[in-house]
Amino acid sequence: MLKVYLSGEIHTDWREQIIEGSKGLDVSFSAPVTDHAASDDCGVAILGEEPNKFWHDHKGAQMNAIRTRKGISDSDVVVVRFGEKYKQWNAAFDAGYAAALGKSLIILHQDEHQHALKEVDAAALAVCKEPQQVADILRYVLTSKLPG
Amino acid sequence: MLKVYLSGEIHTDWREQIIEGSKGLDVSFSAPVTDHAASDDCGVAILGEEPNKFWHDHKGAQMNAIRTRKGISDSDVVVVRFGEKYKQWNAAFDAGYAAALGKSLIILHQDEHQHALKEVDAAALAVCKEPQQVADILRYVLTSKLPG
Amino acid sequence: MLKVYLSGEIHTDWREQIIEGSKGLDVSFSAPVTDHAASDDCGVAILGEEPNKFWHDHKGAQMNAIRTRKGISDSDVVVVRFGEKYKQWNAAFDAGYAAALGKSLIILHQDEHQHALKEVDAAALAVCKEPQQVADILRYVLTSKLPG
Amino acid sequence: MLKVYLSGEIHTDWREQIIEGSKGLDVSFSAPVTDHAASDDCGVAILGEEPNKFWHDHKGAQMNAIRTRKGISDSDVVVVRFGEKYKQWNAAFDAGYAAALGKSLIILHQDEHQHALKEVDAAALAVCKEPQQVADILRYVLTSKLPG
Amino acid sequence: MLKVYLSGEIHTDWREQIIEGSKGLDVSFSAPVTDHAASDDCGVAILGEEPNKFWHDHKGAQMNAIRTRKGISDSDVVVVRFGEKYKQWNAAFDAGYAAALGKSLIILHQDEHQHALKEVDAAALAVCKEPQQVADILRYVLTSKLPG
Amino acid sequence: MLKVYLSGEIHTDWREQIIEGSKGLDVSFSAPVTDHAASDDCGVAILGEEPNKFWHDHKGAQMNAIRTRKGISDSDVVVVRFGEKYKQWNAAFDAGYAAALGKSLIILHQDEHQHALKEVDAAALAVCKEPQQVADILRYVLTSKLPG
Amino acid sequence: MLKVYLSGEIHTDWREQIIEGSKGLDVSFSAPVTDHAASDDCGVAILGEEPNKFWHDHKGAQMNAIRTRKGISDSDVVVVRFGEKYKQWNAAFDAGYAAALGKSLIILHQDEHQHALKEVDAAALAVCKEPQQVADILRYVLTSKLPG
Amino acid sequence: MLKVYLSGEIHTDWREQIIEGSKGLDVSFSAPVTDHAASDDCGVAILGEEPNKFWHDHKGAQMNAIRTRKGISDSDVVVVRFGEKYKQWNAAFDAGYAAALGKSLIILHQDEHQHALKEVDAAALAVCKEPQQVADILRYVLTSKLPG
Repeated sequence: MLKVYLSGEIHTDWREQIIEGSKGLDVSFSAPVTDHAASDDCGVAILGEEPNKFWHDHKGAQMNAIRTRKGISDSDVVVVRFGEKYKQWNAAFDAGYAAALGKSLIILHQDEHQHALKEVDAAALAVCKEPQQVADILRYVLTSKLPG
Repeated sequence: MLKVYLSGEIHTDWREQIIEGSKGLDVSFSAPVTDHAASDDCGVAILGEEPNKFWHDHKGAQMNAIRTRKGISDSDVVVVRFGEKYKQWNAAFDAGYAAALGKSLIILHQDEHQHALKEVDAAALAVCKEPQQVADILRYVLTSKLPG
Repeated sequence: MLKVYLSGEIHTDWREQIIEGSKGLDVSFSAPVTDHAASDDCGVAILGEEPNKFWHDHKGAQMNAIRTRKGISDSDVVVVRFGEKYKQWNAAFDAGYAAALGKSLIILHQDEHQHALKEVDAAALAVCKEPQQVADILRYVLTSKLPG
Repeated sequence: MLKVYLSGEIHTDWREQIIEGSKGLDVSFSAPVTDHAASDDCGVAILGEEPNKFWHDHKGAQMNAIRTRKGISDSDVVVVRFGEKYKQWNAAFDAGYAAALGKSLIILHQDEHQHALKEVDAAALAVCKEPQQVADILRYVLTSKLPG
Repeated sequence: MLKVYLSGEIHTDWREQIIEGSKGLDVSFSAPVTDHAASDDCGVAILGEEPNKFWHDHKGAQMNAIRTRKGISDSDVVVVRFGEKYKQWNAAFDAGYAAALGKSLIILHQDEHQHALKEVDAAALAVCKEPQQVADILRYVLTSKLPG
Repeated sequence: MLKVYLSGEIHTDWREQIIEGSKGLDVSFSAPVTDHAASDDCGVAILGEEPNKFWHDHKGAQMNAIRTRKGISDSDVVVVRFGEKYKQWNAAFDAGYAAALGKSLIILHQDEHQHALKEVDAAALAVCKEPQQVADILRYVLTSKLPG
Repeated sequence: MLKVYLSGEIHTDWREQIIEGSKGLDVSFSAPVTDHAASDDCGVAILGEEPNKFWHDHKGAQMNAIRTRKGISDSDVVVVRFGEKYKQWNAAFDAGYAAALGKSLIILHQDEHQHALKEVDAAALAVCKEPQQVADILRYVLTSKLPG
Repeated sequence: MLKVYLSGEIHTDWREQIIEGSKGLDVSFSAPVTDHAASDDCGVAILGEEPNKFWHDHKGAQMNAIRTRKGISDSDVVVVRFGEKYKQWNAAFDAGYAAALGKSLIILHQDEHQHALKEVDAAALAVCKEPQQVADILRYVLTSKLPG
């Protein structure tokens, strides 16, 4: 079984597209918490309020790291999607983390970010523009079948 | 000797400030190529032109990775500075790479990026706003002396 | 499945509370031997008496280490609880061992020990006061659901 | 050269005794910051005040971890001394951390703590009562000479 | 279960012979994509055409590496077959990769390549001439039964 | 499940005694080939005769290493039994190999070999005289139950 | 200092060209034995004759591996040159070995071998045609200076 | 510099022969304590008497392990000599330990032990009969010069 972690942008349905496109394959997917509000507030919701925004965020980010680290460490392939908006530094952080662990990295982004992502792309085994391409790669890697 | 790698933003003199502030300490600093033009074009300048911008960037980014990987792998501490402009995904990538290798991470950024950097900060042992604070940390870590 | 090792204090029912609070989750728990007498005497009971208390304890502690090492090495998350009494150096030892292996660490203790545990807490991804908070974290990490 | 990290209790001169007793040997010693006040306040002194004691301590403990991790990681031998007072959980944490990294561990404590330290002692290659014994071990390990 | 990766030459049915010869054993086999055309063109078929043959091949080779790395990393034993034709540098590369990871290496080739393969053979635990010998080794390793 | 590798002497039924004594426990056992003749001749039986005894033995020993390495690498606990006769250097080699991998080591031997085995015993978590003691340890480690 | 291992073809002066082109840089070079006759016969010359060519070669190849493994393990960068002649499987083996250890890989070959080397090139951070390009990369990586 | 650890038999001058034969080479040698009495009694001499011979030996063997582990871990090459007498299980243990760490292993013994040492020899890169052969190997590995 191929274990795939889907990191990055959480505002569009790219994860669902990849999962749908991979139907029938021997793949298991994992991902970070994609409920934005829960992800931001988990730390204080469980461990208690913080008046300072830095520690509010710190508690949440460390709690999310429990899930993220396991997801990346357990995976064979890490897919990282960069969207059109926001800084998305956590996505690039995950890519670096995965690269250092020797995971196979697939990066997914539009052309407009090509130059800004050149160091991240340089560590990847594939750079895609569409979620369907990721599903096609997974299908090929597992079954030797090419699309079309 | 404490080996410190200075990753991230290359448009201000923050590296010089840290080095100046660390005078007399048993520290050795390394850093990526900070000549922006050379860093962008090194790949094609040495290995031959590429008509496609993606491969132009790819060749350069992989060549720069020879220096970056050695710098991070050899270091005890990785300092990553996020500036006001640009996506700086390579900085966040370096932070993730360093975190996965178990390096001590110091992050340097202004308050405006606090929320966007929360996952990166959560992996750090110190989060600073000014280069002088980084130098103060290095001095304290090496000599037990606090500033002031 | 998330593998969780529950280290530390063995005189209250905090483990049962966490296990009860995690019902229905895809978690497997492991723990040290919590039968105090068996844990103290296992070495000599199986391998033969020792007149010297140091070796009596040594034989037992090494035998218990077979279980502890496997428990920690196999886990994704290590929870360490510090109670009100005793030195509990084995709990802190387990926390350090887990930290060096890169395990996600959750520390559980009352406020009174906050200063004495600051180095241990500093290596953790979450610091809790109540067992229920640990269960809440596990639930959130696995299902994205927050309590309440 | 044998690199030795001296962890633990900072209120007596045991480190000086070991260093004095090791004169002429090819050993280099490192240690945590032993200035108690600086060690407690380094975080806020450099990175800014925290009204909450937990975060005050957290900032300091993480800053001290930069030194501690390097000290332990670079060492061949880690000596951990447990004194008569305080909880000293950081000492036990260091011992666990060092054990997981496969460092040779020497534990130094009085008889009264023998039972409470049995798991820590069980991971050690030597258990001493006096600093001079540690120096004697280092001398023997490096020169084959026994005392007396 | 013994996990075996079958690397190398893809023009004869040696893999089928080993699999057939291993019937009834607790072995799972994996292998690279053995459809030569798909293997050569996978990169551009999924990620888009490249006018330059180097990048055409590069995209394909990196995509195939996703499968190859997982296959080798997950295996206990790596069998590498060198055939009569072609340079087969990818086979020797896989052998070196497997050796560095500490995998048990079985090399399969005819006498004519003996001298050219001496460094590869020197890293192996067995050097065979016929696929049936590989199956015999697997059977012996798993069941203690020798052929005949 | 606890995975236990049973290394060493192959002329008595100590493995059967441990397996019998561990009935009902969640343990899986593995071991080297214990058919002495097959173990000695496997190399030449499968890969072809060698006139030189050194290479005859070499081929066999390397083939057996495929099984031994997997057995030790996959295990949590390595039990090594030293019998009354022969040099049994392979048993001591396995013990060293297992120790370097951080496996929990249990050594089994009679008193007469105590001094000669002191370095091996010093790397172990338990030293037993009877197979039943090994079974008792496994039962205690898995169930907290002491014998009697 | 950058440590560079120069693997591969030993019939032309490409190593001397790189070393000459790197004058003044903080680089140390290592390489395999490049005396072909010595490299082929070292095993039997020191350890005694072997009538069988396979074992003659085996002894030599294993002896050379002492040097090769140290050279690769100690290096930051591994350069592998593929010449016009011979199978050169040891070069590809070294490339795979270095890749698995995470070394920065530079491959040096003419266009005619591009397709056959695509898997090796895909693991590299730079692919060169001329030794001078390797020297240019080392100069750039160490000094940020581009040629011309 | 090549770091060589000389393990095993301590009753003949084989170490001196190798060191003498390696004059002028860039090698550094280390070894266990070769003073038999000191090696046996170091534990109790420094840490206090033990009435039980097992613990007498245990204390000594663990103290010697501080030196042995550092020697092996720091080395590139581990030479293990098996003499004519005694069980020498510590030598075989060191060989296994070194093999698991991926050290280059050279074994030194007379023909009479060939069969008993076949598993140890099978993990080695060279098997010698005379100390001079070890020196010859070191000279060849470092300078490419063959004897005679």
